[in-house]
Amino acid sequence: MGQDSFTPQKRPSIGGGLPTTINAAAGGGRARVLAGMPRGRQIHKTFNNIKITLLCGFVTILVLRGTIGVGNLGSSEAEAVNQNLIEETNRILAEIRSDSDPTDPDEPLETEINPNVTYTLGPKISDWDQQRKVWLSKNPEFPTFVNGKARILLVTGSPPSPCDNAIGDHYLLKAIKNKIDYCRLHGIEIVYNMAHLDRELAGYWAKLPLIRRLMLSHPEVEWIWWMDSDAFFTDMVFEIPLSKYDKYNLVVHGYPDLMFEQNSWIALNTGSFLFRNCQWSLDLLDAWAPMGPKGPIREEAGKILTANLKGRQAFEADDQSALIYLLLSQKETWMDKVFLENQYYLHGYWAGLVDRYEEMMEKYHPGLGDERWPFVTHFVGCKPCGSYGDYPVERCLRSMQRAFNFADNQVLKLYGFKHRGLLGPNIKRIRNETVTPLEIVDQLDIRRSVQWKTESWS
Amino acid sequence: MGQDSFTPQKRPSIGGGLPTTINAAAGGGRARVLAGMPRGRQIHKTFNNIKITLLCGFVTILVLRGTIGVGNLGSSEAEAVNQNLIEETNRILAEIRSDSDPTDPDEPLETEINPNVTYTLGPKISDWDQQRKVWLSKNPEFPTFVNGKARILLVTGSPPSPCDNAIGDHYLLKAIKNKIDYCRLHGIEIVYNMAHLDRELAGYWAKLPLIRRLMLSHPEVEWIWWMDSDAFFTDMVFEIPLSKYDKYNLVVHGYPDLMFEQNSWIALNTGSFLFRNCQWSLDLLDAWAPMGPKGPIREEAGKILTANLKGRQAFEADDQSALIYLLLSQKETWMDKVFLENQYYLHGYWAGLVDRYEEMMEKYHPGLGDERWPFVTHFVGCKPCGSYGDYPVERCLRSMQRAFNFADNQVLKLYGFKHRGLLGPNIKRIRNETVTPLEIVDQLDIRRSVQWKTESWS
Repeated sequence: MGQDSFTPQKRPSIGGGLPTTINAAAGGGRARVLAGMPRGRQIHKTFNNIKITLLCGFVTILVLRGTIGVGNLGSSEAEAVNQNLIEETNRILAEIRSDSDPTDPDEPLETEINPNVTYTLGPKISDWDQQRKVWLSKNPEFPTFVNGKARILLVTGSPPSPCDNAIGDHYLLKAIKNKIDYCRLHGIEIVYNMAHLDRELAGYWAKLPLIRRLMLSHPEVEWIWWMDSDAFFTDMVFEIPLSKYDKYNLVVHGYPDLMFEQNSWIALNTGSFLFRNCQWSLDLLDAWAPMGPKGPIREEAGKILTANLKGRQAFEADDQSALIYLLLSQKETWMDKVFLENQYYLHGYWAGLVDRYEEMMEKYHPGLGDERWPFVTHFVGCKPCGSYGDYPVERCLRSMQRAFNFADNQVLKLYGFKHRGLLGPNIKRIRNETVTPLEIVDQLDIRRSVQWKTESWS
Repeated sequence: MGQDSFTPQKRPSIGGGLPTTINAAAGGGRARVLAGMPRGRQIHKTFNNIKITLLCGFVTILVLRGTIGVGNLGSSEAEAVNQNLIEETNRILAEIRSDSDPTDPDEPLETEINPNVTYTLGPKISDWDQQRKVWLSKNPEFPTFVNGKARILLVTGSPPSPCDNAIGDHYLLKAIKNKIDYCRLHGIEIVYNMAHLDRELAGYWAKLPLIRRLMLSHPEVEWIWWMDSDAFFTDMVFEIPLSKYDKYNLVVHGYPDLMFEQNSWIALNTGSFLFRNCQWSLDLLDAWAPMGPKGPIREEAGKILTANLKGRQAFEADDQSALIYLLLSQKETWMDKVFLENQYYLHGYWAGLVDRYEEMMEKYHPGLGDERWPFVTHFVGCKPCGSYGDYPVERCLRSMQRAFNFADNQVLKLYGFKHRGLLGPNIKRIRNETVTPLEIVDQLDIRRSVQWKTESWS
């Protein structure tokens, strides 16, 4: 119980000779006092002794309190078990984090990055379109179009270690459940990456080697859709109008005026974007990567980006700023194949959206994808997995929960439920069950409304 | 910094009249003393006053220490921020947990369960096979067979609130990533449930109303595969031999002798099983559910189960024991359609498997699914999300991490990587990249080996 946590400190000495009990103070003292003092002085002396005794008793209590805390004298078994659990968990986590294969002769030392050698994502491939075309013709069982839709692979991920903030893992879990729901409804496959493929391109840059690797490993995939782990689907019906991008290879949420007139560092957002699986994309990735290698390169690149992009604070190069800078400085090379989309929220900045969900539910309906019913709500700056977000934690968590419930309601509807409110976990029935459940399926299954749209446009 | 966390308590009064500074004690006291006392008495009085002053100073320090702690006087900014973060997180979590819709007139009170009314999962449907058949014929765009394989829906989930043990959410995340990988490779859709569909059938019983609801909402799905959140796929190649079960409606890992000769409470395992989407399954769910409603019914049912099943401790009715009891007591009704599978590890009890992974990697290969390379490793009894598992936390976490890495290696192989060891997060390259990546895809893509098998058997 509280026994193991109680380790009394050695009581500090408070001077020799002071009586520590009333009896000793009163008894011994009284005998000496009474012997040869006037009565008033006796009373005064006695009173002094009592004061000192009380003071000493009080000091004793304070010492104990400072050591174990009065509240802990009655601590429950649960508290001790909890503490034990935390210690065990931390012990194994430390072991997991430090694990390496001792028998591996290739265990690398920390290598210095040579700034004179341009970093590359991999060996230069120049005929990817041809390679892919040949492969697809030989492998008809892996078509690039399924049910009339181009094949999309949604890619997301998070680091392999637990979050600094414990609640972070819980919201990563909710975010992937949210993505699973959307992708199931729309026939999209998911890769959830938890591996550092490239030590130099770590952090937000990690998506570059990952996208390249997936493109080259999945020739049947037409579009690679990167989505941040802190982005939630909030319109479960809306579907990306892929035919709009027949002539483009990169679709990213952004604003041309912010880009070309203001050179703003937030002219586009790399939290949610699509890359066509083709040679052009491989080339763009190769042109994008050089600012990424961590260390002096990334630091220096950060200065260039801050100097050239409006509104950018001073910090190391991030992938978003680097892409903007690349597209600005090599506009003629790339921009004819880049679509800056802002007709719907391929990326929707959360702060202006999450407080309006109730209004949206009252006035609008899923399928719009824009400011009336945002396709994606992206919690830029919240960083629930880390310790230092740009916004108060409470506000972020509350908002993420609301986005989750707002989306989940659209999924639960088919099953006859909705959340009681946008914040809590509880759900309630919105429809009695019947003995003919398929009538509801005909009306409510999102995939059927999507299917109808696909057929009517094909 | 520390400012917001510092709230000095009102200092307890320690009696009136005691000087609190040396000057007041010495100065004021000394004047009075010196006036009319012998020198010895003066010294004694002065000494007393000094003692009291020192004591009071000491008391003051102790009070401060008990309130803010001496150690905190130099605490780092990070510690204060961390504490702040924890407090904010807890505050919003409490709010989220308690949230309910105040405008909802249907907000239920805690209802008493009437043991005289038999619980039902929903209105009795008697013609589900016919309803489904008609629907499928009218909706050819939602076939029940895709690419020669019957459509499977994998169902799993976890509670909507964060785990009691913070690390639990991290392993739920890893477990769903693991399932996403397997299901992507095998064309299986996933539903990740985080909602309590039925307050009476909570906990491990929650899978029953969920399975029923999904069957009735997804007529195109042929098999519903329930899988616990603490079960990991460890053979990424192995595929369930569905044709083996053409004449069966429930496939569950179990042992006939344990079942019928020993009536053992672990004769089968409901952590991973398949239900065919048909009338028979609806009927079985209806027969299974009555022991589930929480409260007196579940308690009493637990006693019956403990009395009748070998090895079962005394606790409330669980779904697994209840199913065993049902199949034993109504053997003729159900067993002709139940397949107790043990030729491969549809459920593989972790304790006998996780320490052999290195041996498996040395001697065998994926695709076997049995004790040589287990299909599923199931962490029964670990309960990483809760506080009270049946095994030491350290052992469980280490073992789950090993299972995760063991499985992840099979996925990373296509991309040219593997984990350095089975415990740590780091990966290493196992193959140099080339300019002809599709040669590797032809050799290594698991879906291609699965495709070949499907074609050769059809």
